[in-house]
Amino acid sequence: MDVREAIRTRRSVRRYSDAAVDIQVLHRLVEAGCWAPTADNAQTWRFVVVTDAARMSKLRMIAPGFIGRAPAAIAVCQDMAEAERRLGAADAMALAPMDSAMAALNIMLEAHAEGLGTCVVASFNRDALQKLLRLPEHVVPLLLVAVGYAKATPSAPPREVDGVCYFEEYHE
Amino acid sequence: MDVREAIRTRRSVRRYSDAAVDIQVLHRLVEAGCWAPTADNAQTWRFVVVTDAARMSKLRMIAPGFIGRAPAAIAVCQDMAEAERRLGAADAMALAPMDSAMAALNIMLEAHAEGLGTCVVASFNRDALQKLLRLPEHVVPLLLVAVGYAKATPSAPPREVDGVCYFEEYHE
Repeated sequence: MDVREAIRTRRSVRRYSDAAVDIQVLHRLVEAGCWAPTADNAQTWRFVVVTDAARMSKLRMIAPGFIGRAPAAIAVCQDMAEAERRLGAADAMALAPMDSAMAALNIMLEAHAEGLGTCVVASFNRDALQKLLRLPEHVVPLLLVAVGYAKATPSAPPREVDGVCYFEEYHE
Repeated sequence: MDVREAIRTRRSVRRYSDAAVDIQVLHRLVEAGCWAPTADNAQTWRFVVVTDAARMSKLRMIAPGFIGRAPAAIAVCQDMAEAERRLGAADAMALAPMDSAMAALNIMLEAHAEGLGTCVVASFNRDALQKLLRLPEHVVPLLLVAVGYAKATPSAPPREVDGVCYFEEYHE
C-alpha cells in the first residue's frame, strides 16, 4: 500500500471481527514501531503484545477507552529509568511520550497495510495495566493500540488543513 | 512508495542540499500531518511552515538540535487553550504532545515518499521560537521538523526488536 494512501485511509476502528491476528504479524507491527525515530536514539520503548482471551477481557475492563472487542492489543510502554539515564529526567518526561506516540503510529500504519484495523487509546488505569502486564514500576504504559480485523470502518472526521497551516508566521 | 518501505527507510537527515522545497509540497506535508489521529479528535495542532532564508537563519540560532542547513522547517505547535477546553488541563498536557508527535511522523513519512529528507527536533528555545513565529502564549511549539533534499543519508541505527517486544507479560 502506498504510504500517502495509508496515511489518508487509516481510520480509528472500533468494531472488530472475532478473527485472531497472527502472532508473527503482531511481531512485525512492533518491528515497524521500532523504526520510528527516538530522542537521542534512546529506544527506551517496551512493547507488550496481548492476545490471550482472558487477559484481553481484563484489559478491556481497565481501559475505558478500549472500545469494541479487538482480539489483540499492543501496549506501548517506556522504561522510564533507562529514559532518565539516557536523556535526563526533564527530557525523559517530555520526550518519551512523543517517542511512544511515533512508534504507535508506525504500528497503526503497518497494520493498515496488513489489512488490519487499529485504534490508539490513552485512557486506562495505569496501575491496573502495570499489574496485568507484570510491568515493574519503572516501565510505564503510555498507549494501548487495539488490533484486529475491522467489522466496520468509520468515515474520517473532516480535516481543516488551511485553518491550521500558517506560512512564515502565525496570525489569528 | 510502499508504506512498509517508507517506515523502514526513513532516516534522520542532517545534511541537506541548497535546493528549495516547493511551498505546495510543504502544504501537502502538513496535510499528511493532519491525517494523524488526535485525542478525542480535538485536532488542536497548528503548523507553521518556514522557508524565508533570514527567518531560517534565526531559527537555526535558537534551535541547537537543528543540525545542518535544511532550507525549510515545519513547527508543530499546539493551541493549548483550545486543547484544555477540549480535553481538560491534565489530558491536554499529557496528550497534546503525543498528538503532535504523530502528526510529525506523518509529515516525515510523506516527505520521504516525496524524495525529501527530514529530521525531527525537540531541542529549541521555546520562548524565542514563539517570538520568531509570532505565536501567542497559548500556541506552544512542541517539535520542529527540518525539511529539505538530502545531501547525505545516514545509515540506520540498529533496532533490537526482540529485546523490547514481550508476549502477554513483561519479564526482565
